[in-house]
Amino acid sequence: MSTSTFGRIFTVANFGESHGPAIGCVVDGCPPGLALTEADIQADLDRRKPGTSRHVTQRREEDRVEILSGVYEGRTTGTPIGLLIRNQDQRSKDYADLVDTFRPGHADYTYWRKYGLRDPRGGGRSSARLTAPLVAAGAIARKWLYEQHGTVIRGHLQQLGDLAIAFESWEAVPSNPFFAPNAGMVQALEDYMDALRRAGDSCGARVRVCAQGVPVGLGAPLAGKLDADIAGAMMAINAVKGVEIGSGFAAVTQRGSVHGDEMTPEGFLSNHAGGILGGISTGQDIEVSIALKPTSSIRLPRQSVNRALEPVTVATEGRHDPCVGIRATPIAEAMLALVLMDHALLHRAQNADVVLPVGPVPGSRVA
Amino acid sequence: MSTSTFGRIFTVANFGESHGPAIGCVVDGCPPGLALTEADIQADLDRRKPGTSRHVTQRREEDRVEILSGVYEGRTTGTPIGLLIRNQDQRSKDYADLVDTFRPGHADYTYWRKYGLRDPRGGGRSSARLTAPLVAAGAIARKWLYEQHGTVIRGHLQQLGDLAIAFESWEAVPSNPFFAPNAGMVQALEDYMDALRRAGDSCGARVRVCAQGVPVGLGAPLAGKLDADIAGAMMAINAVKGVEIGSGFAAVTQRGSVHGDEMTPEGFLSNHAGGILGGISTGQDIEVSIALKPTSSIRLPRQSVNRALEPVTVATEGRHDPCVGIRATPIAEAMLALVLMDHALLHRAQNADVVLPVGPVPGSRVA
Amino acid sequence: MSTSTFGRIFTVANFGESHGPAIGCVVDGCPPGLALTEADIQADLDRRKPGTSRHVTQRREEDRVEILSGVYEGRTTGTPIGLLIRNQDQRSKDYADLVDTFRPGHADYTYWRKYGLRDPRGGGRSSARLTAPLVAAGAIARKWLYEQHGTVIRGHLQQLGDLAIAFESWEAVPSNPFFAPNAGMVQALEDYMDALRRAGDSCGARVRVCAQGVPVGLGAPLAGKLDADIAGAMMAINAVKGVEIGSGFAAVTQRGSVHGDEMTPEGFLSNHAGGILGGISTGQDIEVSIALKPTSSIRLPRQSVNRALEPVTVATEGRHDPCVGIRATPIAEAMLALVLMDHALLHRAQNADVVLPVGPVPGSRVA
Amino acid sequence: MSTSTFGRIFTVANFGESHGPAIGCVVDGCPPGLALTEADIQADLDRRKPGTSRHVTQRREEDRVEILSGVYEGRTTGTPIGLLIRNQDQRSKDYADLVDTFRPGHADYTYWRKYGLRDPRGGGRSSARLTAPLVAAGAIARKWLYEQHGTVIRGHLQQLGDLAIAFESWEAVPSNPFFAPNAGMVQALEDYMDALRRAGDSCGARVRVCAQGVPVGLGAPLAGKLDADIAGAMMAINAVKGVEIGSGFAAVTQRGSVHGDEMTPEGFLSNHAGGILGGISTGQDIEVSIALKPTSSIRLPRQSVNRALEPVTVATEGRHDPCVGIRATPIAEAMLALVLMDHALLHRAQNADVVLPVGPVPGSRVA
Repeated sequence: MSTSTFGRIFTVANFGESHGPAIGCVVDGCPPGLALTEADIQADLDRRKPGTSRHVTQRREEDRVEILSGVYEGRTTGTPIGLLIRNQDQRSKDYADLVDTFRPGHADYTYWRKYGLRDPRGGGRSSARLTAPLVAAGAIARKWLYEQHGTVIRGHLQQLGDLAIAFESWEAVPSNPFFAPNAGMVQALEDYMDALRRAGDSCGARVRVCAQGVPVGLGAPLAGKLDADIAGAMMAINAVKGVEIGSGFAAVTQRGSVHGDEMTPEGFLSNHAGGILGGISTGQDIEVSIALKPTSSIRLPRQSVNRALEPVTVATEGRHDPCVGIRATPIAEAMLALVLMDHALLHRAQNADVVLPVGPVPGSRVA
Repeated sequence: MSTSTFGRIFTVANFGESHGPAIGCVVDGCPPGLALTEADIQADLDRRKPGTSRHVTQRREEDRVEILSGVYEGRTTGTPIGLLIRNQDQRSKDYADLVDTFRPGHADYTYWRKYGLRDPRGGGRSSARLTAPLVAAGAIARKWLYEQHGTVIRGHLQQLGDLAIAFESWEAVPSNPFFAPNAGMVQALEDYMDALRRAGDSCGARVRVCAQGVPVGLGAPLAGKLDADIAGAMMAINAVKGVEIGSGFAAVTQRGSVHGDEMTPEGFLSNHAGGILGGISTGQDIEVSIALKPTSSIRLPRQSVNRALEPVTVATEGRHDPCVGIRATPIAEAMLALVLMDHALLHRAQNADVVLPVGPVPGSRVA
Repeated sequence: MSTSTFGRIFTVANFGESHGPAIGCVVDGCPPGLALTEADIQADLDRRKPGTSRHVTQRREEDRVEILSGVYEGRTTGTPIGLLIRNQDQRSKDYADLVDTFRPGHADYTYWRKYGLRDPRGGGRSSARLTAPLVAAGAIARKWLYEQHGTVIRGHLQQLGDLAIAFESWEAVPSNPFFAPNAGMVQALEDYMDALRRAGDSCGARVRVCAQGVPVGLGAPLAGKLDADIAGAMMAINAVKGVEIGSGFAAVTQRGSVHGDEMTPEGFLSNHAGGILGGISTGQDIEVSIALKPTSSIRLPRQSVNRALEPVTVATEGRHDPCVGIRATPIAEAMLALVLMDHALLHRAQNADVVLPVGPVPGSRVA
Repeated sequence: MSTSTFGRIFTVANFGESHGPAIGCVVDGCPPGLALTEADIQADLDRRKPGTSRHVTQRREEDRVEILSGVYEGRTTGTPIGLLIRNQDQRSKDYADLVDTFRPGHADYTYWRKYGLRDPRGGGRSSARLTAPLVAAGAIARKWLYEQHGTVIRGHLQQLGDLAIAFESWEAVPSNPFFAPNAGMVQALEDYMDALRRAGDSCGARVRVCAQGVPVGLGAPLAGKLDADIAGAMMAINAVKGVEIGSGFAAVTQRGSVHGDEMTPEGFLSNHAGGILGGISTGQDIEVSIALKPTSSIRLPRQSVNRALEPVTVATEGRHDPCVGIRATPIAEAMLALVLMDHALLHRAQNADVVLPVGPVPGSRVA
């Protein structure tokens, strides 16, 4: 199975390099009849695209998506949806110095060792630019999930470097370039980023994603666990070093009498599980948190080696996100949407006939 | 693709229930010619098996593995290796009360909703007992990796509930029932567990796994990232709620000038990456940490519902691990072995011809 | 993806060797709630098993299947169904001479070259014995298809060596050891086989399989074509060298004005398509024919080589089917069932919501 | 696994419709370092493209391929190769009548039933136009196979309707629009097609493909049999109704003493197996034949129904190949190349270490 393809039956085959002619993907397995236009997809792409504030890379890309197939007269036909995004602003000269040297903490070195050669322009295939087709595919999944199940997938920045961002409201998220759920924090975040940029350094971040209105029963034991697939999808995002479901690492110090979410006919009393038990969705909100490492392309000089394994000093100018986490929120939302849609289809493949005499226990949906 | 099968080309198809006739798996894609006996596998199964101390479930299972196929005259033939473990000590009556009610924090409820019916005996397929075939398969992967690449995979308990366990030495690990790398902590761990058991409660844990001697170049961009596959495999272990690679969540507050591991001709100067950059192994140690939630089957009474969604109180007697994390170390090692072997084979499928003029940068291997 | 696993989401992972301890498979993706006992499976296994007439191998195997998992209180639970068949009558000494030499037309040579070593006992993994677990898995698929869709899958011998067998009735099929649909031919078939056996030679055969009551819409364009998957499944049966759907090779000389099956509101007027158009089922009977080559293990002496590539003469005694086609009918039925079930589940995964204002065109069901 | 994706680890994800904006594919798993330009691919596309003689569809398509990714400075990088072909000559009005009616023998009906809606323009996704991206992908596989193993893949027309075409030489094949290996037959083929076109009818065909220089050992038992994968790939080509390997259906009447190819140290004495035994390549030529049905879009009036299941008469004008088999040769070659390359990579994944003390038995390579 292709290592560039996500999903089991709702699949996304990704292709492209940062500075090649185009990036894109083939989305297969989408049910027919879904109303879909390029505008539906563009909205999510615009949330992810570069150059939208001074705190992210200044590369100018419209990220204009073209639907090449799978849609006829405004509806999906059930056949593969080809999505194409042309690269536009490829200032490859910025990277000329880096052909021969390896940035500490970057995939430069591992690509070279694995493949013997690599496209160094803009990080080639290791660039976070390749998340754009995933966001585009995720927009399709998100639309289907909402129309079929009322599922709403949202995310926000939880922490930027040293600054924890208390959750105030979902409404605050779209009104600032950080996806911060707290308007009062925005100035502090701006200042933090400005100082970081001046220092020529970068920082990590923490992002939370949440899916509300997820049907009960998605996922399968062992290799098909919903949380396993979510963890894999999240860790596939550039720079992610950690994934938590529900309580996550806080579960280490919890007692069973605290962690296990009690149930009543009126609903769950808590959601430490993050909406998944035994790899299967409970109907509660699915709660995921991810840790993103600081960008490896920084101006501060660092020790490294070149292709002859001679010592060199590397300082990266060029255009880079000083915190990749800032643009990660729509990407993480998309990955969650892809996994949920794949499992929704898998579930009805096997269990479409299952009927129970009672409905599900209501979830406890705390934002 | 089966949701019970792990891996792409070195695959493990798992089957079985806690109290059914048998559990087992089919391991496919193993290279021919590997010397393999049941004893090679049994050693790892014995490390995982229940009933080895008073701190884990008192179920008595020999976990005796039988090789059904794929080995001839002591060597693998390249054909699927069928592995069978008969269940022996199935006291299903212990669970009779639980047919109709759902333990808070347990998969009881989600299995019922997904499938409409379930095997309630001992948790059925949701039981951690199903990790035994994975440990068996992992033993094969581990042996091949060691013989081919000198890879050594080891793990230990890092934290038990509130007790952090400082790493002292790998040598300490096998000499105590906790897989603790610190002999001086063992008495405290015993006391902690005794108190917990008396209280009728359970606790979480944190486990670290580490692979030394991993070849450079394993993994692939995007959907085939080595860390994505590791995260998925770890999250597939029962009770796991969080996964970290390298610095993990600590990367959130790190600067790029700290996190990015500098390289010199003599080696990497640190390993915040945990041995993986851009989804591809660097040749440094692969470092993984996982968080395990507390067991949901506890004696303390808890609010829940029955199949009619009427309120009930649940208190679980039966035999259970009060901390599933205690036995998780060999399981996490096995999962890491499975992922690494799958990627080692995938890598040579695509890149067997790649030859570089210089060897890899030495890893910084700090235990 | 494992080369021992059939199917996409209704999957069968096969393991075992002819003379190893056991053969079996793991069937995953089965919907929950299907009534299933070992007797349901045994009936099909008994139709395939050896030793039932003097015209097939005299190996005595009960082929007693044991369900190891996935069934609780007589119903499938939706979790993997482990199936085990112990080998019993392993006269491996019969094959002792063949360790070092290669039978012309047999997999002996290719296994050795691929794997460098092989289990030579009874053909090891290349034995047609490995179709038994597929027949067992097929019995599950067949039962589900019948209960859900009324699908009936049947097959018969069409030709034995030089003897074409005119179709008279399905009723005749089970009453003779050849699966011949023509009671009047049975004596001629017996005589033909007796003469062949005396001559120490073997012959080929042609088998037809037919599925009635297949829902419209199974299959998908390009890589998921129903006929492509059927062709692959049939060619995976031992000794098969050709596959036809509908008119098959006769289509070469047909005109479009003949081949294209006309439709009326009352039904299709013919079925040259064999029930599949554009890779998708039409609702007509699915018609498949396969060609099986003569058994390669014959008493007549033949030129060959040994492992040192020295010339040798090979004459195979041992127990063999002088015409593997005789026992192929239940195997081909099983393979068709597996493909249809996989596609039935895939179809509802993607298209469960599709509703049309009119029903399908009735099929032309001519036996 | 996507039903639009061919292959296990050398994979081709196909997208597009006949009259949509573009068709294409994502080729993944290609080894790095292969010299590759658009010209390498274009050569094969040009052999398949429409409008090259009066005997095929008069649609004018340049079928100009663009490489979107996976190639840097003229060499593959090991990352996915995105291939794009813009559709140009889309006279969709030709098909306006067909929106509501179903051509006998065409996928019109089954697509509508499966998906509830369809893109009717030019057959939408069911068009043979979708083989163009497969031919493009096959060109990559073919190049790699030749450079790595000296494998040469060739095909030719064996029969056109009633006209059998005796094989004279491979040299004749490229010099006529039929891919006929016999220059003396070309006039008869021209006349036959002219008469057929005047009659408003269509005819079937038979095509042979052959791979020389295939390494021994490709393929795997059971679900990964090389011949099973070839059969599946061939049956996935539009209009194919039958597949034969080696002797194919002629094996039915062969004796074992004839069919089994004898071996000597100097080589095989015949090739009834078609180069595959037990699902694994022998090193002899791989021989495949396919039957293609007559085109369903013909001018002769035929009985059919419309979407209300009312009776209608259908006569198709538009531009169509009166014999799809004429252009099938390069397509069948491409499919064979894709399967062989996938298996070559799979083989080295598992068996890269296998070393035998003697080389393979030479094949008997008779054109």
